[in-house]
Amino acid sequence: MARKPIRSELGWSSAERIVVRGKDLPGEILGHVSLGDMAFLEITGRVPDERESRMFNAMAVTLVEHGVTPSALAARLTFLGAPEAMQAAVAAGLCGLGSVFVGSTEGVARMLSETTDVQKILAENKRIPGLGHPLHKPTDPRTVRLFEIARETGFYGTYCETIEALGREKKLPVNATGAIGALACELKLDWRAVRGIGVMARAIGLVGHLLEEARQPMAEEVWLRIEEEASAHLRPKK
Amino acid sequence: MARKPIRSELGWSSAERIVVRGKDLPGEILGHVSLGDMAFLEITGRVPDERESRMFNAMAVTLVEHGVTPSALAARLTFLGAPEAMQAAVAAGLCGLGSVFVGSTEGVARMLSETTDVQKILAENKRIPGLGHPLHKPTDPRTVRLFEIARETGFYGTYCETIEALGREKKLPVNATGAIGALACELKLDWRAVRGIGVMARAIGLVGHLLEEARQPMAEEVWLRIEEEASAHLRPKK
Amino acid sequence: MARKPIRSELGWSSAERIVVRGKDLPGEILGHVSLGDMAFLEITGRVPDERESRMFNAMAVTLVEHGVTPSALAARLTFLGAPEAMQAAVAAGLCGLGSVFVGSTEGVARMLSETTDVQKILAENKRIPGLGHPLHKPTDPRTVRLFEIARETGFYGTYCETIEALGREKKLPVNATGAIGALACELKLDWRAVRGIGVMARAIGLVGHLLEEARQPMAEEVWLRIEEEASAHLRPKK
Amino acid sequence: MARKPIRSELGWSSAERIVVRGKDLPGEILGHVSLGDMAFLEITGRVPDERESRMFNAMAVTLVEHGVTPSALAARLTFLGAPEAMQAAVAAGLCGLGSVFVGSTEGVARMLSETTDVQKILAENKRIPGLGHPLHKPTDPRTVRLFEIARETGFYGTYCETIEALGREKKLPVNATGAIGALACELKLDWRAVRGIGVMARAIGLVGHLLEEARQPMAEEVWLRIEEEASAHLRPKK
Repeated sequence: MARKPIRSELGWSSAERIVVRGKDLPGEILGHVSLGDMAFLEITGRVPDERESRMFNAMAVTLVEHGVTPSALAARLTFLGAPEAMQAAVAAGLCGLGSVFVGSTEGVARMLSETTDVQKILAENKRIPGLGHPLHKPTDPRTVRLFEIARETGFYGTYCETIEALGREKKLPVNATGAIGALACELKLDWRAVRGIGVMARAIGLVGHLLEEARQPMAEEVWLRIEEEASAHLRPKK
Repeated sequence: MARKPIRSELGWSSAERIVVRGKDLPGEILGHVSLGDMAFLEITGRVPDERESRMFNAMAVTLVEHGVTPSALAARLTFLGAPEAMQAAVAAGLCGLGSVFVGSTEGVARMLSETTDVQKILAENKRIPGLGHPLHKPTDPRTVRLFEIARETGFYGTYCETIEALGREKKLPVNATGAIGALACELKLDWRAVRGIGVMARAIGLVGHLLEEARQPMAEEVWLRIEEEASAHLRPKK
Repeated sequence: MARKPIRSELGWSSAERIVVRGKDLPGEILGHVSLGDMAFLEITGRVPDERESRMFNAMAVTLVEHGVTPSALAARLTFLGAPEAMQAAVAAGLCGLGSVFVGSTEGVARMLSETTDVQKILAENKRIPGLGHPLHKPTDPRTVRLFEIARETGFYGTYCETIEALGREKKLPVNATGAIGALACELKLDWRAVRGIGVMARAIGLVGHLLEEARQPMAEEVWLRIEEEASAHLRPKK
Repeated sequence: MARKPIRSELGWSSAERIVVRGKDLPGEILGHVSLGDMAFLEITGRVPDERESRMFNAMAVTLVEHGVTPSALAARLTFLGAPEAMQAAVAAGLCGLGSVFVGSTEGVARMLSETTDVQKILAENKRIPGLGHPLHKPTDPRTVRLFEIARETGFYGTYCETIEALGREKKLPVNATGAIGALACELKLDWRAVRGIGVMARAIGLVGHLLEEARQPMAEEVWLRIEEEASAHLRPKK
């Protein structure tokens, strides 16, 4: 029993044609649209103009590589057990991009998309996402650079001002997730898309980690050390 | 007990600096390197030149969006149950990028990286990956376009010739996975990286599907229809 | 730099011995503890007595098999692309056990572990988890049976009474997740463990689905039908 | 366009009834079938008899808890980033149960299901799965116990003899995966089901690890230590 129609606007193909988002894939996309611009197209339904492209690519690139994160370690440990299934190791790494890490970017975008009234935000939020960093003090160098690019491309606006005002009020630096959340609002992206930008960017970075793991492994050593230490207190003394 | 050193070359950061692959992230990467070029950097350890960038971006973009694939459906069905965890829905979608779909691109790259002797390949392989397509006959329009870009950028070489010769021998079109596998060899990418290109590209496409699912859902209807049909023969006749 | 100790109490092994939760695995567990009781041991740190075992096994078994759910479909669609990685297909299926489906059991356990004051719960919750079912009306036959087993084993107590009183107030049947959430409280399980029971039970059910998919596939047909319908409106009319 | 029928034999429900594998769930399964026997039902389509139940439960229980494995670490590191999505942390842990760890049990079952001719197996296999263990020498205490239960239940037969003969020939102990692979053949389970037993058992164990992680965390400390060590050689000397 068909109850409701099932529809997707994303693409279709026939023997001769492949159409993605209303554009001919071979003729209008391949060779014309870069991977970052394709990501913008997937998120917004349209190809970015030059300024949008520059801003969006900088935001996404910021999220690609953060070194040996919990997510990268999870991917590497998964690859150790299933090297034939690299896709599942990337998947394992992505599963951890939840409320603690990538969630804060989403939180900033959501908060600013609701209001840019600094006093209201201060009154309503005990803890404001996008502010503070354990390492990068007194400023996060990524924020400085992202807002510089925002000024160059004309995207430094109310949302950026708001998060900076919040940082001053709280005496905390605007971190990269704060900057990216604000810039997503400047680009008029749905706040729901923001976690997606983090997920796609990190998928790229995780592939880099797995290729390094294949050449220069660490997962087995991590496992053996941690297992030994974790159970040392249980083992009988000799 | 530390048995072996644990090392990663991918990055480090201090209070003032963030370095990725030996480059200053804010100063040398953000605003200078696009997302596609960042992916190339993650895979190869270096920023591509202009010709490499054009070729690599076209290859990766080809793999982003294939419409309502099994992988996209798995992601959408996962999102239906856990809309608060978009990262896990992307992860579910990636888990299916194994031997049947993305595997063939890897198979082409591996095969060609071992030999470009057409007769030897024909003798050794019952089924040659990268040839034939259920829909795109007599040619795959993506292959035509990718090889056109390869000629423009100087990357149409022995590996491309080999897969095309194999197609002629087998009277089958070189499909997009065949073209991308050959082009990965032309770009001197490790064959192990090829599955990774598919995984990162599809992660981008899956985010697009999930954002569409949030606006215009199909997963619940798919579920209800299939569940009803699948169990209809078990239900008591009225 | 070791900052904090790393410790796990779950197990250790030497050449001759394997100890899990303080018990000799070969001597005290294998042949003595069933899979369901082992699950109870993993959750609580102790082997259940006979009454606890009967109750807990009934609760977990309730959650194993729910037919062709979104989660089962996601697993089957994943298996279609990566049949060599069954573990990843189960993983994909589990990723969807979030707030919408398994979450309500957790919600019931959490709610009742905070208070069993019916009026307070009614006042504080707009929507009470564990009540109502689209199909099973006016009663959920699983709830009837689980509470029957609860009475036989002496676990029908205040938490069960509370959820039943809530059902009467709301004129809605207590569904299986409501019953299991209440029973988890009766068994003094941490509410955090409740989602875990659903996850482990469903992992068992997903293996059943994948073995059926291998014998009697449906995923490819689901994909082809949905893809065709979803893009029909985009295709040029002939 | 419906091309092929879509059917599942696993279950159906109506307002009053829930039927799983042809059995009334409330009336014939809940309170009568334990979780381990339900797993056997999911794999084989029938409830095990008492001897089968004892053997199967012992096999599955063996695979539940192996201490701080790479899979458990991946789950814990994932939980650190997404504590709100425990299901995704279990999924991440399962993704690593591939060729290296759980795969060998499957390999044994597949090998023995093809032939029990010891000389033929020795001639055809460079490396025989299920033999040898880095720690448990000269015997694996789980194998001793599993074969003891097999003798008690009447399941010690040709497949067990074959793997033991192979162990003697190779002067290597039959490890637990070897014993379980052989016993799966004795129970007439499809070799494809064997990986599934490992996956479902480990899902139970992973829930145990995540509950411990919530009470007594290690993931953050693992991350901070490894990240520091991995990048130490890149950081500027002071």
